[in-house]
Formats: sequence, structure tokens, C-alpha cells
Amino acid sequence: MPRNALYAQSGGVTAVINVSAQAVIETARRHPERIGTVYAARNGIIGALTENLIDTAQEPDAAIAALRHTPAGAFGSCRYKLKGFDKNLAEYERLIEVFKAHDIGYFFYNGGGDSADTCLKVSQLGDKLGYPVQAIHIPKTMDNDLPLTDCCPGFGSVAKYTAVSIREAGFDVASMAASSTQVFILEVMGRHAGWTAAAGGLAAEREGDAPQVILFPEIVFDEDRFLAAVDRAVKTYGYCAIVASEGLRDANGRFLSEADTTDAFGHAQLGGLAPRLAQRIKTRLGYKYHYAIADYLMRAARHIAARTDVEQAYAVGRAAVELALTGASGVMVTIERQSDSPYRWTTGTAPLEQVANVERKLPRAFITADGFHITEACRRYLAPLIAGEDYPPYENGLPRYIRLKNVPVPPKTGRVFTIGTQT
Amino acid sequence: MPRNALYAQSGGVTAVINVSAQAVIETARRHPERIGTVYAARNGIIGALTENLIDTAQEPDAAIAALRHTPAGAFGSCRYKLKGFDKNLAEYERLIEVFKAHDIGYFFYNGGGDSADTCLKVSQLGDKLGYPVQAIHIPKTMDNDLPLTDCCPGFGSVAKYTAVSIREAGFDVASMAASSTQVFILEVMGRHAGWTAAAGGLAAEREGDAPQVILFPEIVFDEDRFLAAVDRAVKTYGYCAIVASEGLRDANGRFLSEADTTDAFGHAQLGGLAPRLAQRIKTRLGYKYHYAIADYLMRAARHIAARTDVEQAYAVGRAAVELALTGASGVMVTIERQSDSPYRWTTGTAPLEQVANVERKLPRAFITADGFHITEACRRYLAPLIAGEDYPPYENGLPRYIRLKNVPVPPKTGRVFTIGTQT
Repeated sequence: MPRNALYAQSGGVTAVINVSAQAVIETARRHPERIGTVYAARNGIIGALTENLIDTAQEPDAAIAALRHTPAGAFGSCRYKLKGFDKNLAEYERLIEVFKAHDIGYFFYNGGGDSADTCLKVSQLGDKLGYPVQAIHIPKTMDNDLPLTDCCPGFGSVAKYTAVSIREAGFDVASMAASSTQVFILEVMGRHAGWTAAAGGLAAEREGDAPQVILFPEIVFDEDRFLAAVDRAVKTYGYCAIVASEGLRDANGRFLSEADTTDAFGHAQLGGLAPRLAQRIKTRLGYKYHYAIADYLMRAARHIAARTDVEQAYAVGRAAVELALTGASGVMVTIERQSDSPYRWTTGTAPLEQVANVERKLPRAFITADGFHITEACRRYLAPLIAGEDYPPYENGLPRYIRLKNVPVPPKTGRVFTIGTQT
Repeated sequence: MPRNALYAQSGGVTAVINVSAQAVIETARRHPERIGTVYAARNGIIGALTENLIDTAQEPDAAIAALRHTPAGAFGSCRYKLKGFDKNLAEYERLIEVFKAHDIGYFFYNGGGDSADTCLKVSQLGDKLGYPVQAIHIPKTMDNDLPLTDCCPGFGSVAKYTAVSIREAGFDVASMAASSTQVFILEVMGRHAGWTAAAGGLAAEREGDAPQVILFPEIVFDEDRFLAAVDRAVKTYGYCAIVASEGLRDANGRFLSEADTTDAFGHAQLGGLAPRLAQRIKTRLGYKYHYAIADYLMRAARHIAARTDVEQAYAVGRAAVELALTGASGVMVTIERQSDSPYRWTTGTAPLEQVANVERKLPRAFITADGFHITEACRRYLAPLIAGEDYPPYENGLPRYIRLKNVPVPPKTGRVFTIGTQT
């Protein structure tokens, strides 16, 4: 007898997380003898807890195929992490109640480090509470900070966005520098890891190319050395293009971006990293600046997704279902690199115990000795991840992204469950 | 006897200004009997004044053709405006000295409103100082604020970038809103005119689509009404996506973005528009927010240029040379719209006296009654301008933008000329 599957999206969404959703649904549809309906939880694990399920069987094949070129989370994502079994047993009992009611035998959780922890706990429902579910984690994070996988789907497209953007902005500021802007700063997301900032370095293929300076969260910010590097670039090339990671910290471990508070006099101190850096450059070097803050634009930029990334996002979704069919549980699908050039990769697995809550930072060997750029080793690692274009279809000059019907599944538990608030 | 031409780029650069350069050079090369060498001034009029000229004849046809897909200013741009003849005669005499030395008979200036004023003055060199030069202005501005032309090359691509970006970010925040970010703000450039912000409105094709709120510089900012609109969107659609123009002003005419100064206690007040709006939303509505500041990324984004824009940038450059061959001077090439749908256009001309220093703002009829979105009339105007894609070639996952050799022309005047400082 086939059992049903539950798929859910978690954490910050990406340009290609829906490609993994597409792969899960398409692969499951090829195995009706083993997998019945693929339900999607609305807003990640929250939808599972509140019995807010979506019947993906109501979506025609063409709609599922269109997920390939649609960014963000088609079923909604969440920032909600299950506590330990001892701390909130009610949530686990509720999950089992919902899973039983809908005959869920497979759970596919598509997310990053926090989500891997939730997926691990679901995989333990059998041992701990007597309701076995095969739980497989499908990696996804623009931050590229999951361990045991060569890279994370979602990252390659952000990496491409960053490299393309700083190249374009670099051309811009270079042409303005003689009588106007000399310094440009691009602030990028990436939390505590410098992967996305490093990707900007790919744009610098030749002497003098943008970016000339990269600020990594792995390197303690030293204002004097930073300003010296900026000044050198302006004096040598006429301009300076900078990629700065939002996770940059000073010697006290304090985020440079974090002063969005009130000062001693009660005045609001707005800011963020880029304007702060810009102000120091203006004050101490006198250069005119511009800055951009990419924020969600970078992780949602399906229009400039990397083909490698799209292919890997599909591969991990398909592998998750195929692994489930072999009886696997409690694992994350991984990307394993076989060679840099030509780039060859395959999928593998890693035990969730070793994945959950571990953050992989940029290795020091990927950062140049001066701390302001990427090494050849880093370039070899990153280069294949941004390879290839994979444009969405356009209509009226705009990318045609799909919104699924998202038909709700009638609740069966007869019980309302209210979740706690988390941030 | 053929005379030489001088081409120069001025003001903020765009994704397609080099397409106009390509058109000028390619068209001139087809008329060797009338036009000798096309020189380019390095960094706009500054290069003309300092006799810093580039010999474009040294560039092979393939390099000139590659300008079609290369953003920013291939010869450097400037922010430098010629003063009146009575105020700085020395500059005009110097221009004539350089023009005479290099036998310049044609001057093509590629820029916005300020640049049109400079071009006008060059066109008057004959009447005022006895050295006739045919001066033709080639329109270029991402701000779309030039009068007498239906639109400005450079704007269509920025418009497309804005609409694509807010659509993508809208999908992102919609999928996060249940348990995380509910409001997203995209701050866009555009100076005192709301054209670029309006373009974001194209992404909202159906009820509930992003953006739900647009803030135009033409509409006085009213915090209470703005917050009510944001709150309504969040309550109705679960999230709110906002496009905000950098030129937004309050009832006192003060830019909302302009508090990058010190407060009464000497504390630096960083900021800018988007963080300021975000803070008000957080404080008064309690919604979690994210914001992006597009800045140069939007005007340099050749990777997502609109095909219409690329074609028009080429057309105005070609028309400028063809007009010069008919003896024209003191005019700007314009885009004239013949019909909205199907979109048909041609080039025309406008006298520079009527162009220089005039700023065309978004008509009130293009903004909805509540002041927060665009009307159908605006949509009809904007829609064809973002039509079509025109992707650059890629290599190693990155767009292959050209850097010309920019071979300097040996100086002939034997005189060094130092220009004044302007900002």
C-alpha cells in the first residue's frame, strides 16, 4: 500500500528551492505504487503542526514543471524550529496526530541548518514515540554554510548574482570616478559565513577588475587596514569596488551593522553596514561613494540563476525521494564534487546528526593573506557553481513566475493546534 | 574634405549608453567621405577641455560591436557643466583650441538634462566665438526626466530591472510572511522624478501582486496614510512590497533620505530613505521588515536590459550622425511614440534650448488617486519600454563586457588646461 508524503520548505527561501519541490513531486509521481499523494505543508513545519496541508495532486504537470523557473517558496516557508522532545512533547504528539490522519510515511524537509535539526527530530518520531516516518533533508541555503555537502542549492545563483552585480557596478563607478563617485560598496547577505561575499571575487578576473576589496565575516574588521586598501585601489585604478558581508564584525566580536538602536540621548541611530563603511571612507579619505544593499533581491533573483545551481536543486530533490524508496531516513542529501575542471558532481548522503546546527564558514585558505580577496583555491571551488544561465520565460517584459493553486487538504484531526511564537 | 567627430558621455551612466556610442561610431564609419575619425573625449567634456582624447579608429569593428552589450561608460563619463559664456570664456576658447587642433566639425554629446545645456553651448560656438561646430545631443538618462522625448534611452532597462526585482522580492516576502518578514522595501534611484518607481508598478499585474505600495517624489509623503496602506496590504495579502523613490519628500519639501548629518549632539545620523521607512513600520505597525537599496546596480544591470531600450539607444546614436550629415546642430534626438499597442516609435528632434535644464516629472494622471500606485494610462506608457530581453554573452558564468583599448590621441595644442572643481 502506498503511503503519502509530506514536503515542506523552511528558512530563508532562494531562487531555486522550488526546483527541489518540483523534483520531489515529479519523482514521487513516477512511483505511485510506493508514494500516494505528495502533500505540502503550508509555511513549513508550521503547516504540519496546524494541519494546514496543500494537495499537490491538484496541480497539473505543467504547473509543477513551472516551479523550475519560479523563485521563493511556492508553499510558504517558516522560521520555526522544533524544541527538544523533553521541552515540547505536545508538538511531537501533534505531528504524529496529523501524520497519522493523513497517512504520512515520508517527510521531506527543504531547508538549512536549523531545518536539518527539525528534520532530524521528525526522523526520531519512530524511536521516541512509536510512529516511524522516513525523514529526509533536502539542503537549501543561499548562505552555503551547511557542512558535509560540497555546496548548497540556492548558493550558486546568489553567487552568480553577486559576481554579475559587482562587475556591472564596477564598470559603472570606473566610468564615473574621474569627476564623481570613486568608491562603490555592495553589501551582501550571508550571515556569519563569507561565501556570498567571496563569490563577488569571481568578477575580478584581471588586474584592476572590480571588486578590489572584499570584507569577510571570517576576518576581523580593521578600519585602518581597510581604508588603506581602499585608498590604494583608488590611487592605482582610479576607483574602488567593495563587496561587504553583512556578518562583518569588529575586534570585540560586535557586528558592524548592528547599531540600529538609540544612542545615549535617545536618538535613533539608523544604519547598517554599507552606510557605516561609506561614511568612514568619506570622512577619512574624502572619496565620494555610492552603496547598494542587495538583501532579498540577491536570493530571489531567479532571472540570473546559475544553471549548475538549478540542476543541483533538482538533483537533491529527486535523490531525496529515491533515497526514501530505498528505506533511508535521518539523512541529508549532499552534493559531492568529483572534479573541479571539468566540473563533475554527484549526490550523496550525510547523517543529520552531523549536519544539524553546524555552520560551515569560509576556510582561511580561501582568503588571501591580506584578508581582502579570494585565493586561487577559492576561485577553483566557486567557479563551477555560477556556470551556465537558465533564464525564465518572459511575458510582457516580465518573468512569468507561477503561483500554484495550493488547494487545501480538508482537516481530519478535528482539532485546532496553536503554535507558540518564535522569532 | 571630411572633418572629424568628437563623441562624449556625460552624467550618470546607464546599461545602454555604450549602445549609442556603438551607433555613432558604426554610422560614422559608413560615411568616410564626410566624417573622418571619431574621437571620444575621455570623461565627457573634461576630456575635451584637457585634450584627453581617445582614437576610436584603433578599435576593430568587433570591439565596437561589443559595446552593444557592455554597461556603463566605455570612455568615462563626468559630472561637469560648462558655465555661461560670460562666466567662463576661457573654457570655450579652450574648447575651440582643441577642436581646431583636431579638426572637430561634429560634436555628439550623450547625456541628460545638464549635458543638454553643455551641448547647447557647444552648438553656439560658431555664433558666439566664430568656430562653428555641429553639436547634436544624444539623450541618455535612467531618470527618464528629459522633456520633448517620449522616453529616454537607459530608462527602459532600469524600469525592467525595477519591475523584475520587486516581483522577485515580492514572491520572497510572500513566502516568508507567515512567521517572519512581512514588509519589504525596495529603494530606487530616479532623482526628483518618479519614473523608475512607477516602473515597479508594472510587476503588479493581478490583485495582490507586489508592489502594493509605491512612493513617488511627486506625492508629498504622509506617514499616517502610508502606514495605513502598508497595514491594509499586510492584512489583506499577508505581506506588503513597497517601491520607494529616493526623491521622496515630506510636507516641508525636505528629502526623507537626507538626514545623513550630525544631530544636535554631534552624533552621526546615518540613514537613507529605506531604513527610515522601515523603522517607522516596525515602530508603529510592529511588522518585521527587510529592505534593499538598488543604487548603481539598477542602472548598470545590462544583464537584464530591455530590448526596446537597447534598440532605442542605438537608434538615437545613429540618428544623431545622420542628422549631422544633413547639417543639423543644436538639437537633441528624440523618441517619438506612434502607438502604444502594437508599440511603434521613430526618432525625431527637439531644439536644445527647450531641453536643457528642464525636468519632466511623472504626470499626476499616471498616479492613482490615493497616490500609492500607477494608473492604466501609466501602464500603457511604460509597458512597451520594458519589452524584450537582450542578454549579453557569458563566459565562465559571467557576462563578457568589453574594455576598449582607449588609445590616446597625441596632444596637439601644446598647452595644459586645468579645469575648475565642480561637484
